[in-house]
Amino acid sequence: MQREGFLVVLSGPSSAGKSTLLERVLLKMPDLRYSVSATTRPPRPGECEGKDYFFVNEKNFRKMADTHELLEWAEYCGHLYGTPRFYVESVIAGGDVVITDVNIDGARQIREKMPFGVFVYLMPPSLDELHKRIINRGMDTEESIALRMKAAVDEMQAVIDYDYCILNDDLAKATDQLMAIIQAERCKVLRTHIPVFAW
Amino acid sequence: MQREGFLVVLSGPSSAGKSTLLERVLLKMPDLRYSVSATTRPPRPGECEGKDYFFVNEKNFRKMADTHELLEWAEYCGHLYGTPRFYVESVIAGGDVVITDVNIDGARQIREKMPFGVFVYLMPPSLDELHKRIINRGMDTEESIALRMKAAVDEMQAVIDYDYCILNDDLAKATDQLMAIIQAERCKVLRTHIPVFAW
Repeated sequence: MQREGFLVVLSGPSSAGKSTLLERVLLKMPDLRYSVSATTRPPRPGECEGKDYFFVNEKNFRKMADTHELLEWAEYCGHLYGTPRFYVESVIAGGDVVITDVNIDGARQIREKMPFGVFVYLMPPSLDELHKRIINRGMDTEESIALRMKAAVDEMQAVIDYDYCILNDDLAKATDQLMAIIQAERCKVLRTHIPVFAW
Repeated sequence: MQREGFLVVLSGPSSAGKSTLLERVLLKMPDLRYSVSATTRPPRPGECEGKDYFFVNEKNFRKMADTHELLEWAEYCGHLYGTPRFYVESVIAGGDVVITDVNIDGARQIREKMPFGVFVYLMPPSLDELHKRIINRGMDTEESIALRMKAAVDEMQAVIDYDYCILNDDLAKATDQLMAIIQAERCKVLRTHIPVFAW
């Protein structure tokens, strides 16, 4: 029984712990593929083209964005980062599952282009906990803390647009839940090539 | 974060191995509740009312069926068997997950009454394998084998009406998959009470 590949989008507020969770799940599911991003940032020593990133210049990046070759993109610290459509689509065409972690806006962009992806929202334990973390970093003014908390409240409300929601109050539990979601989505009849039965 | 309970319906052709799979999953998921059936069959020694079955007389059973108090029912070896709605609904109302294993027709009856249940189809490894099992039992005439195989082909085609499909070619794998489906469905945003976020 053949199953189709699909894209899993892991998103949530920046403090939710997306990268840590993703790392764990990738370690435990060796068949799961990580979506390689494109960036205009120059390669750092040891970084490999096509494994860590697809390194492109700004002109080519902008062209990819204009021609819908990026599922989502954003500027961060003066460089452009995006999710190339061709990589995701080639993994899916091979029958595999590919996962990406993006912020709330990135997930929104991807949903417009791939509505049949699996959208998973990672929820931080609480706004109190988030507030503590920001204060403990000691890097924000009172005004900037207020702005960050306002943004977090907005981002928390985005959860209703997702398929699944995982509460990140226990990393082992969250890992099990994300793995279960991927395994269950694999079993969807919609993603299964049903053979013709005859006798 | 509060999650809603739901009903899981495990179905498939009679040879698929539903009861064995269900037993395994119930052992591994102690919070999962098994849907207790109603029957007109007299209790056997050691059977407990409300645990093994709800024992009812035929008049009351027929009344339950007529007043839609049974999610599905059928006659088997001269006795009536059915799935009482009140039991399933009380487990769901308590926020728990309840599972039942029924034949294809039973699943069809339940879907009409509870379209938001989770419908899982258990697929036998192949029609060849099924044919072998029927022959090996040595209980069927050539004509009855042909009829059984025809019925099995029809039942296999019902899979397209289900949410999930598990191939029962490996009991351990099938157990993992059914557990993953239940765990993933627990994480559905649709089944989650999203709190009001304010700061």
